[in-house]
Amino acid sequence: AHLTSTLSFSLKGVVLDMCGVLYDSGEGDGVSPSVEALKASDLQLRFCTNETQATREKFVAKLQRLGFDICVSEVFSPAPAAVAVLKERGLKPHLLVYDVLPEFDSVDKTNPNCVVIGDAAEKFSYQNLNEAFRVLINLEKPVLFSLGQGRYYKETDGLKLDVGVYMKALEYACDLKAEVIGKPSPMFFQSVLNDMGLQPSETLMIGDDLVNDVGGAQHCGMKGIQVRTGKYRSPATSFFTPPDLFI
Amino acid sequence: AHLTSTLSFSLKGVVLDMCGVLYDSGEGDGVSPSVEALKASDLQLRFCTNETQATREKFVAKLQRLGFDICVSEVFSPAPAAVAVLKERGLKPHLLVYDVLPEFDSVDKTNPNCVVIGDAAEKFSYQNLNEAFRVLINLEKPVLFSLGQGRYYKETDGLKLDVGVYMKALEYACDLKAEVIGKPSPMFFQSVLNDMGLQPSETLMIGDDLVNDVGGAQHCGMKGIQVRTGKYRSPATSFFTPPDLFI
Repeated sequence: AHLTSTLSFSLKGVVLDMCGVLYDSGEGDGVSPSVEALKASDLQLRFCTNETQATREKFVAKLQRLGFDICVSEVFSPAPAAVAVLKERGLKPHLLVYDVLPEFDSVDKTNPNCVVIGDAAEKFSYQNLNEAFRVLINLEKPVLFSLGQGRYYKETDGLKLDVGVYMKALEYACDLKAEVIGKPSPMFFQSVLNDMGLQPSETLMIGDDLVNDVGGAQHCGMKGIQVRTGKYRSPATSFFTPPDLFI
Repeated sequence: AHLTSTLSFSLKGVVLDMCGVLYDSGEGDGVSPSVEALKASDLQLRFCTNETQATREKFVAKLQRLGFDICVSEVFSPAPAAVAVLKERGLKPHLLVYDVLPEFDSVDKTNPNCVVIGDAAEKFSYQNLNEAFRVLINLEKPVLFSLGQGRYYKETDGLKLDVGVYMKALEYACDLKAEVIGKPSPMFFQSVLNDMGLQPSETLMIGDDLVNDVGGAQHCGMKGIQVRTGKYRSPATSFFTPPDLFI
C-alpha cells in the first residue's frame, strides 16, 4: 500500500518478476511484495519470468498451491511472448522445444519460415539440430528465435547445457544473429506493455536482477525497482546502474 | 621437373595439398603435379589435408589404389597433428571424434585435462556434448581443440552440420576460444615443418585453396603456390592475395 501511494501519481501498471520476488528459489521461504494490495488497487498487474522449463499452466498451479492469487493470463514467459511475435509477423515456426511445446498449440507450423529453439535439452540431438539448420539454410531470409540465451544451468545430476549454446551453434552454421526472447529483451517487455495497453512511463518493473529486470525495464522506458531479495547482494558488489527505487 | 629447377635455389621441401591437387573431388579425373618427379628429386615431400572423415590409413589406401606413390607417414591431417600437440604439451584428451578415433590410440586419455572435437557428426548428441562441456568447465584452465572449423558440408542426403558449429557451442558454454587444428592454422603447418626439419623459407606449399593452402603457408613464412585445379576459379572472382606462383 505504501508503494502504490508513493508512486501512484503516474503509475498505471506493475510488472513483477517471479523467482526471487514472489518466491525464493534458494534456501528459506519466499518473499513477496503485497500481491493482494496490488490486486486491490486500480493498478494493472502482470508477472514476468524467464522460466522456460514448464508451461505457464504448470508454473501457475505451483504458485497457486503456494497461496498466490495469480492466473495464467497474467503471466509472461518467453514461450507465449514468442507466440505473440510469430503471429504479429506472420511467421510459421519449426520448433525445437520440449516442455513448452503446448504453448505453441495455436500456431500454424506448416511450411515453416523460421526456427524457434528453447528448452529442448536432450532433444538437442545432432539430427534435430541438423533439421533446424536445414530449415534455416533453405530460407531466403532465415530467422531464428531463442527462448533465452543461458549458457548452462544446474540440475541435481550436474551442470547441463542451456539453449544459448545451441543458439550460438545455429548462428555460426547459418551466419545469422538470433533474436532472443525473454528478459532483458525489449521485445519481451513490450509484449507485456502491449497486453496492459500502457505506455512504458506508466509502468513499473519490480525484480531482483539488475540486468534482466531493472536494466531491461529501464531500457524500455519503464521504471525499475530492485528488491533486496532473491539474488540481490549488497550494493557495493552487486550493481552498476542505480535502480529507480529500492523496496 | 620444371618446377623444381625454377625454385630449387633455396628449396628443400614441398608440401602438397591433396583434394583438388592430387585428385579432384568434383567431376572429372584427378590432376596432379608430378609426384614421381618430386620423389626422384632431393626435395622432402609431405602431403597435407583437412580431411577428418577417415584415418590416414584408409585415406592413403584409396590414393594408392589411384596409383599414387604415397605412404601414411608422409600425410598430415588434423588428427595426427592434434596428437603431436597433445604429446608436446602433456595434455590428456577427452575425445569427441568418430572415424579418426584410431589416430589417438597412442594417447593417454586418463583423467583428461582438455577436449578434442572432430568428425563426431551423429555422435554430437546432447549427452556427449554435455559430457565434453563438463570436462571443460571443471578444468582450471580449460583447453578445447577443434579438428577444423567448418560450418557444414554436403552429403548425398543433404547438408550436415560440421565440427565448427559444435566448437562455437562449447566456446560459448565455457567462455573460451578453441584452438583450431588443420589448415590454415600456423600450428598445423608448423607440425609439417617440424617433421621435415626445415625452415619455413625452405618450404613450398602447393594447393588449390587460396585461404587454407596459400594464405596459411605464407602466414608461416612458407612460399605458397596455387594450382589452377580443384576449387580454383578465375583470378577475377576468386582471389584477393596473390600467390607466389601459379603452376
